[in-house]
Amino acid sequence: MRIGFVGLGNMGSGMAANLLASGHQVVAYNRSPGKAAALAERGATAAATAAEVCDSEVVVSMLADDAAVEAVTFGGPDQAGILASLPEGCLHISASTISVALAERLHDAHADAGQAFVSAPVFGRPEAAAAAKLFVVAAGAPDAVAAAQPVFDAIGQRTFVLSEQPAVANLVKLSGNFLIVSVIESLGEAMALIAKAGVDKQHYLELLTSTLFTAPVYQTYGGLMAREEFEPAGFAAHLGLKDVRLVLAAAEQLQVPLPVASLVRDRFLALLAGGGRDLDWAALGGVAAWEAGGPRPGS
Amino acid sequence: MRIGFVGLGNMGSGMAANLLASGHQVVAYNRSPGKAAALAERGATAAATAAEVCDSEVVVSMLADDAAVEAVTFGGPDQAGILASLPEGCLHISASTISVALAERLHDAHADAGQAFVSAPVFGRPEAAAAAKLFVVAAGAPDAVAAAQPVFDAIGQRTFVLSEQPAVANLVKLSGNFLIVSVIESLGEAMALIAKAGVDKQHYLELLTSTLFTAPVYQTYGGLMAREEFEPAGFAAHLGLKDVRLVLAAAEQLQVPLPVASLVRDRFLALLAGGGRDLDWAALGGVAAWEAGGPRPGS
Amino acid sequence: MRIGFVGLGNMGSGMAANLLASGHQVVAYNRSPGKAAALAERGATAAATAAEVCDSEVVVSMLADDAAVEAVTFGGPDQAGILASLPEGCLHISASTISVALAERLHDAHADAGQAFVSAPVFGRPEAAAAAKLFVVAAGAPDAVAAAQPVFDAIGQRTFVLSEQPAVANLVKLSGNFLIVSVIESLGEAMALIAKAGVDKQHYLELLTSTLFTAPVYQTYGGLMAREEFEPAGFAAHLGLKDVRLVLAAAEQLQVPLPVASLVRDRFLALLAGGGRDLDWAALGGVAAWEAGGPRPGS
Amino acid sequence: MRIGFVGLGNMGSGMAANLLASGHQVVAYNRSPGKAAALAERGATAAATAAEVCDSEVVVSMLADDAAVEAVTFGGPDQAGILASLPEGCLHISASTISVALAERLHDAHADAGQAFVSAPVFGRPEAAAAAKLFVVAAGAPDAVAAAQPVFDAIGQRTFVLSEQPAVANLVKLSGNFLIVSVIESLGEAMALIAKAGVDKQHYLELLTSTLFTAPVYQTYGGLMAREEFEPAGFAAHLGLKDVRLVLAAAEQLQVPLPVASLVRDRFLALLAGGGRDLDWAALGGVAAWEAGGPRPGS
Repeated sequence: MRIGFVGLGNMGSGMAANLLASGHQVVAYNRSPGKAAALAERGATAAATAAEVCDSEVVVSMLADDAAVEAVTFGGPDQAGILASLPEGCLHISASTISVALAERLHDAHADAGQAFVSAPVFGRPEAAAAAKLFVVAAGAPDAVAAAQPVFDAIGQRTFVLSEQPAVANLVKLSGNFLIVSVIESLGEAMALIAKAGVDKQHYLELLTSTLFTAPVYQTYGGLMAREEFEPAGFAAHLGLKDVRLVLAAAEQLQVPLPVASLVRDRFLALLAGGGRDLDWAALGGVAAWEAGGPRPGS
Repeated sequence: MRIGFVGLGNMGSGMAANLLASGHQVVAYNRSPGKAAALAERGATAAATAAEVCDSEVVVSMLADDAAVEAVTFGGPDQAGILASLPEGCLHISASTISVALAERLHDAHADAGQAFVSAPVFGRPEAAAAAKLFVVAAGAPDAVAAAQPVFDAIGQRTFVLSEQPAVANLVKLSGNFLIVSVIESLGEAMALIAKAGVDKQHYLELLTSTLFTAPVYQTYGGLMAREEFEPAGFAAHLGLKDVRLVLAAAEQLQVPLPVASLVRDRFLALLAGGGRDLDWAALGGVAAWEAGGPRPGS
Repeated sequence: MRIGFVGLGNMGSGMAANLLASGHQVVAYNRSPGKAAALAERGATAAATAAEVCDSEVVVSMLADDAAVEAVTFGGPDQAGILASLPEGCLHISASTISVALAERLHDAHADAGQAFVSAPVFGRPEAAAAAKLFVVAAGAPDAVAAAQPVFDAIGQRTFVLSEQPAVANLVKLSGNFLIVSVIESLGEAMALIAKAGVDKQHYLELLTSTLFTAPVYQTYGGLMAREEFEPAGFAAHLGLKDVRLVLAAAEQLQVPLPVASLVRDRFLALLAGGGRDLDWAALGGVAAWEAGGPRPGS
Repeated sequence: MRIGFVGLGNMGSGMAANLLASGHQVVAYNRSPGKAAALAERGATAAATAAEVCDSEVVVSMLADDAAVEAVTFGGPDQAGILASLPEGCLHISASTISVALAERLHDAHADAGQAFVSAPVFGRPEAAAAAKLFVVAAGAPDAVAAAQPVFDAIGQRTFVLSEQPAVANLVKLSGNFLIVSVIESLGEAMALIAKAGVDKQHYLELLTSTLFTAPVYQTYGGLMAREEFEPAGFAAHLGLKDVRLVLAAAEQLQVPLPVASLVRDRFLALLAGGGRDLDWAALGGVAAWEAGGPRPGS
């Protein structure tokens, strides 16, 4: 299959490479051009604009945020977007973590243009993307999802199809990030507590992760917190705040109170107000120790 | 070793049986007498009072709450307690989930009486107790902990020694229950959100537990929540509230704010006010769905 | 002075009438035309479009929300807005309760067009508007504020000039609504508590308002709560939620956590999810009683 | 009437002086003896023990906390308490701000001893106590309250009789302190917000207290916050925390969630953890500014 690919960051470059490895033809575009050149060495065609990749049955976009996805899809005065360039009947797969509201706009705009649209955000870090071990959370019209399946097979280890409304996949992705950050917050509170009683945080974490809390998320973020290792950021605090804001906005539309998300939002603001904008979002767990009398994270 | 054992409930009966199975001599007491008789068939000696089990090097107590531990340790007008009955130099191991304040009182009282005291609450459910697969969280004077080691070896799969102050083990145990209940709360919120968007809760849980949230605690409580299966209670809501109250009290002594625990306490009160006192504490997760427009759990 | 006036709702009609009463010449526009006709009987000139009122030194807008202010200022395909119609050097006074972000946009757009802009939201209910007893919260360039002073003198009892940045006045107005709603929330909690102990709510309110809490806000909202009189709405719950959303958004920009506002936002969502959208925002105070076992407000 | 009075602190000395001024005979006891001597100059009889004041129809106690009231009422090994000393049929009026649970214990103990008991905590500061301008919140059996009326008339400007259960008066008193502290919290948040936008806090407070928030509580605490004047403490932060803890405990018994009280409790803990124990409880309002990037109150 000929696949257009937009966005060759840490995640996208691995995903595009796995599409190539599965035998697909890939035309790739990235805003800063070096990335496409690197992929071209593995057999991709480097495109100079987003419009250029649209001469394909399927275009995949994997970008940082709403603004980037909007720019690439709707285009601008200087540059045509996917929407204007993709042939009728073809498919746009959005793998980015974006707002529910934007996913709904994309869906409507593609429908108006006679194009198919599937939301397919992924769970997994860059290593999982490189190893084709992502989990894909997909939603869209059944025939569009079926058309996207070869892409999912190439990039991930398993696909969960959740709804016929694309935006629901984005909601589920955001809810996953909310669950991660709620682990960071509660673990941060527990560690502030036991550390003030003199218990070693590493020892405590070993106890937790040997018993009830064996999930990777406890090991990863608990380790960062126990070592107070918040730089360099794997995922920056201000991006964590952005995702919490998006899940709160989506929940407000559905009239669902999420008090833990509200709490976490306030804690992120305290973290940023103290200079923690670019720390790893695990630094959120340091806010509890700070309130309990410790130093302010980031200061 | 001759070991006195007080408290043959779901947890204690398995623990005492494993002490027997490891070759120890066990003298056992339970307030309601049938339990001791059952254990006697496996080789234990049934005692009619707590005082009677104290003619031992070590006494283990495994009881439901502060009040039960206080009654058995300090005794009353009708009955001598462990404190008055245990020979000088002997050891009391408290395995119950009790308050930090009571653990401190027990430590002081045993020290005044020339006796040793170790706090050793356990992680694990009754099946783990029966299978000698508990995790033991121990704290106390090093020689006392060393003397307790044969008991820990018989009942558990691993022992974590955390501090020389016994009460610290109780704090860590309470923090573990706090982490469980914070999972219930945040998962309840996430499920309320995605369910209102039309996603199937079981399907969603499968996604979570296949990916980032593989820990048993997500599977266990997530499953109860997805099926809205809150009766019969494995662990009742009012006991969950009690543990949250204990962790908040301990944190207040240490001047550590625990906002997630505060939130959970309020949600438990709403659950109990609606008639949910005896539901499984997983019903806490139903409060989010109720606030989002669903039925009140327990009504 | 010739003054254009846009928006003749409950607040605006009183304000415009007082401008007339102070001897100003008023050209008034309202989307639904009946309102302007009524004012014309008192001496105003009724305009058919927003653009028509702009042949004035000063234009005052007093509208319901961001969308209405945007429509009137920026215009649309069918209709020119204030921005395009107001002569250079003239002044737009925005008295509406709008977002900080929109106030910043208005300020920038008017500056680009060579026009002056002052934000001047008001404190007070329709009766105060009719009686020229409003409190005006003004911010903007000093000469623009000075030019606006005759308008403020005609509509209010006192003007507070807070900043040279117009949007700051909007922030202060939103903070005032936040303080009102935090009174509703805390008073709702206190009433839920004492009512469950058997105390009469009216009697309790009389005690509070005779002693420490003599402010009108306690009397007004406490009375509505004590009588559980949530219909008809003086100010609807969904509008209260909107204002809390706006203050949270403004605070996020400034990196200021507002945990009481976060809490209130969640409670509003629970109120709306239960059908309370159009109740008076005092119904927020009923959420506490509902959680404590009472009936759901709005159901 | 012959009245025994126990507790001559800032509040009690004024109250006892007003009983004298109303023509009553007063026998007064205070733990530190200088206070009773001062009152003796105004005509009171100084007593050396609490028991000595009990040769009276009515004994009034006005003490700092539960522990002091317990000591004086139940006595100890060295000293008889009011309970053992007051003649049958006589009345104990407890004016202290104590827990609901202790008020219930006092009521039961006095009933068992054939004595009457009324809870009558007061609203007002020391100046109001000196000027006989207190507001009395009374609860108890109707005949006991009637017997207490001459005392209330002498010390206060108005009495609110709320319930036949004495502890209800204590609940109402605690709820009042909760409402004060919720004003401090929300005003602290609002001030942190507007100050970060460059608005002068004194000017802002003047705006608020001229308009909707005219109550003394806004003026008093808002002024302390605007001036960041937290020493010397009129009412210390750790006592504020104690009262919040008491209201939360009482609400837990009644199964009423009080989320604002939970939030305030956490903020007090952060204040104390940073060294703010002995600051005025208005310093709670400084926690918001601290989280928003300012200095930690008390550091």
